[in-house]
Amino acid sequence: MARLAGVSPVTVSRTLAGGKNVTPEVQQRVIEAVRQLDYLPNENARGLRPGQHSGLIGVAITNLSNPFYGTFALGVEEIAHARGRYILLGSTGESASRESDLIANFLSRRVEGLIVIPAGEPAPRRWVRRLGQVPIVVAAREAADLDADRVLMDDAAMARRAADDLLAEGHQRVAFIGNIVTVSAHRARYEELGRAMGAAGLRMDPRLVRGVTDDVEDAASHARDFLDIAHQPTAIIAANNRIGVGVLREYARRLDEGVRADALPLVAVFDELELGDLLRVRVRAYASDPRELGRTAARTLFERLDGVAVGGPRRLMVPA
Amino acid sequence: MARLAGVSPVTVSRTLAGGKNVTPEVQQRVIEAVRQLDYLPNENARGLRPGQHSGLIGVAITNLSNPFYGTFALGVEEIAHARGRYILLGSTGESASRESDLIANFLSRRVEGLIVIPAGEPAPRRWVRRLGQVPIVVAAREAADLDADRVLMDDAAMARRAADDLLAEGHQRVAFIGNIVTVSAHRARYEELGRAMGAAGLRMDPRLVRGVTDDVEDAASHARDFLDIAHQPTAIIAANNRIGVGVLREYARRLDEGVRADALPLVAVFDELELGDLLRVRVRAYASDPRELGRTAARTLFERLDGVAVGGPRRLMVPA
Repeated sequence: MARLAGVSPVTVSRTLAGGKNVTPEVQQRVIEAVRQLDYLPNENARGLRPGQHSGLIGVAITNLSNPFYGTFALGVEEIAHARGRYILLGSTGESASRESDLIANFLSRRVEGLIVIPAGEPAPRRWVRRLGQVPIVVAAREAADLDADRVLMDDAAMARRAADDLLAEGHQRVAFIGNIVTVSAHRARYEELGRAMGAAGLRMDPRLVRGVTDDVEDAASHARDFLDIAHQPTAIIAANNRIGVGVLREYARRLDEGVRADALPLVAVFDELELGDLLRVRVRAYASDPRELGRTAARTLFERLDGVAVGGPRRLMVPA
Repeated sequence: MARLAGVSPVTVSRTLAGGKNVTPEVQQRVIEAVRQLDYLPNENARGLRPGQHSGLIGVAITNLSNPFYGTFALGVEEIAHARGRYILLGSTGESASRESDLIANFLSRRVEGLIVIPAGEPAPRRWVRRLGQVPIVVAAREAADLDADRVLMDDAAMARRAADDLLAEGHQRVAFIGNIVTVSAHRARYEELGRAMGAAGLRMDPRLVRGVTDDVEDAASHARDFLDIAHQPTAIIAANNRIGVGVLREYARRLDEGVRADALPLVAVFDELELGDLLRVRVRAYASDPRELGRTAARTLFERLDGVAVGGPRRLMVPA
């Protein structure tokens, strides 16, 4: 390329790095040569130089097949793309050790920043001390051991709205399925539901609470239990989309067996449920916007990268 | 680290590169030092050395918020993870120029291989000549200008099954919504439907074919048109998941307006439709398995990387 442009290799490098100490005419010749040769810079090599960016943002989600996270990642990518960055995306499958491996790999690729949905498995995050100067945004869930910006959904507001609706309709026995042990978003929803019910003089029956699941088939089996007890709940609350789908799979089996739709408890789901309004059973969704959550997480990260946001960790809430 | 292990920097490098010409005792000392310092190798730098791998597989999908592609990416990641590779994931949004940018960026990061769902916009793929020695697998759709392994769904078999069902039930007027102009999977499904109908002495009414959409809202407006004409079709066929959801959103509006569910045409959707069996309207899904498609694409790529598969492009079909 240097030969084609009739300049030295150093001049090519300088031009590609921004043109310092290179006259506009010479820069133009280099750019022409780049175009003719369809030159592709080695981005990995470029990222090694001091003061250069890798152009990568690492995004760790927990489950790639949950549409919530796909849409979240799309929101991140939308902002990253506008800023000329690319996303390295990985799934932790809720495993703390896989999260650690993934983030170590992201860091070894010199990502400029990290957006992490913390895995719902309580384990010391050994990778935290490796972070160094790389800014991180924790999204969707709390992570007590991460001293970083947070972008969360308004779980409490969603839960209050659900409780208000249930109470207005006279529900007294409501069941809950979620992962309140290790997923802060589920716990926040559960606790706020309990508070709102308590304020109305009701309490959640501990036998109707299943607090350690985040899986479709597992949720279906919990729903089966609830439907088979003598004194059925009148509503089942699913802490997220996947759990709601599990409950509804069990409902589909019951309808096949001849159970009438109006004999099944109402299902209240946190997260959007696509086509929920077309279902043969009574479903209500209390959703936040995962795309906006992704956008907000990315904007928050760029504010750190740009030096616009300084100081201690911030806490942003995306409305329901 | 060299100081801590009491060896020269060259010995550290040699040990990390596999231990050639380093005694086991010395290797052990280096490994201990690595553990103590929690050393993170620079993967970008490592990938620059001749004979070293970047450890990255580039995956280009068309729409991150379609659960089909999320599940596809999960299948790719499953195999890549088992092989110690990470995926760089990007969405083209069906734009040929964005596809070109994305793949140029993947290549500049020295990905070891590419898995591409071609964007549904016909444009010369300028990036093809940049590929060099990087193997590529084209997934889910045909791309006439790519001389590469293909991993496709059995679109024709799915379409035949749909046609058989429709014909057995006496449907004569069926509408079709898809993107038969630029998406080969939609075209294959449409053409096979037409053939099967033709074999039964029927033909698809061209006024009932909308061949240029792949978008929820657009599909809903086509469904609106079909429902508003005097001589309604008895079935609407949606070429994919997103289009099916669009049709069903219009159905939800009609039900809200008091239209009876059995007065609406049957909906046949290609791709899985979550909770399709719980809907208040008649829906039938003809699905292939996107996770298996992703797994097969990744396995096919690794067969090239391992040198197990040699010779001209292969064509694999994932059964419906």
